[in-house]
Amino acid sequence: MRAVFQQELAEVQDRLVEIAELVLDSIRDATTAFNAADVALADKVIAADPNIDELAVELDELAIEILYRQNPVARDLRIVVSALRMSASLERMGDLARHIAQLARRRYPDHVAPEALRDTFTQMTAHDIRIAELLAQLLRTQDVELADQLINGDDAVDTLHASVFATVLGAEWQGEAEQTVDVTLASRFLERFGDHAASIAKKVQYLATGEWVPEEA
Amino acid sequence: MRAVFQQELAEVQDRLVEIAELVLDSIRDATTAFNAADVALADKVIAADPNIDELAVELDELAIEILYRQNPVARDLRIVVSALRMSASLERMGDLARHIAQLARRRYPDHVAPEALRDTFTQMTAHDIRIAELLAQLLRTQDVELADQLINGDDAVDTLHASVFATVLGAEWQGEAEQTVDVTLASRFLERFGDHAASIAKKVQYLATGEWVPEEA
Repeated sequence: MRAVFQQELAEVQDRLVEIAELVLDSIRDATTAFNAADVALADKVIAADPNIDELAVELDELAIEILYRQNPVARDLRIVVSALRMSASLERMGDLARHIAQLARRRYPDHVAPEALRDTFTQMTAHDIRIAELLAQLLRTQDVELADQLINGDDAVDTLHASVFATVLGAEWQGEAEQTVDVTLASRFLERFGDHAASIAKKVQYLATGEWVPEEA
Repeated sequence: MRAVFQQELAEVQDRLVEIAELVLDSIRDATTAFNAADVALADKVIAADPNIDELAVELDELAIEILYRQNPVARDLRIVVSALRMSASLERMGDLARHIAQLARRRYPDHVAPEALRDTFTQMTAHDIRIAELLAQLLRTQDVELADQLINGDDAVDTLHASVFATVLGAEWQGEAEQTVDVTLASRFLERFGDHAASIAKKVQYLATGEWVPEEA
């Protein structure tokens, strides 16, 4: 019984890694589509998103089944409950990648971002790809140092997000309302992406160090 | 033991209702602050948000403690797991109310929305208040008809959200970039608010009708 349970916990972890890797593919493709006005890549991301949603639902079902059959306690219980939270965050990260791809699709053959903001968005999207890479690695290795990086690394994206607004609100901004809307939304989506990763990282850190269940020996 | 457990489940439900009622206060005050450029109300919402966050964390701790001590099965297990999900959604709804209040605060003494969009935002904010009222009532009564209303009622906000963009992108739009950014974000926040409520409503519906745990007798 115990061996079966350990195997099920490993299965939960494997599935989190699998979804995180799909989210990494999506954000990589979505941001490339966004920066390079590549509509084929944008379509690929949009088509792939329902699969991420479906895998997140299946993972939830597995986690609930484990709670149901195994009555886990202490750290095991925390792992299963955390998985439910993490799957929700990963699913949202997939949605955000899809939103970025949808912006790219809507403006094609134009670029979403005007020249003045391309460099900022290139930095911001590179950060999000790095965040998704770290997150997949964190879920694979459970290395809390990676969790620290993800929790603190968030600041860089926040700074870039603020600078997009500074540009759009600056005296030199020549963008049409359409571009102002698009870059506002894109910047918001890219910023939220990092927030969700930080939230997952906090849960991994919690599992390694936390006092979630006060009675735990 | 069973009586204690039933009492704990009732406590979980009471706390969800309590948080939903605080979210209702926040969205009501935030949207009034937004529509009427009332900075005192905006400050009230911003100051109240940490309390909502804290109550959501405490509810999570209670739910995890129940999982730990009571090993609930079947429907009871689903109620406790759902509570974890719902608390996360309620907390995000509180954050969105705070974001609306922060927009109002930043533009004070000006209004965030220009004349041309006031009426649309008044309708949109009235919808969000109605959504928050229905949600608190749903959590109090567990009436699945209210869940249906919340799941379908979402469309009205989506339509208004699309019409904000249509206005901003229309030929007559005279707004500065600053206003374009603000109304884009405000519209997005107000739209997401309803999405979270629909997500909670789906979980209540699921609990009433669903087959979350396949083995359930």
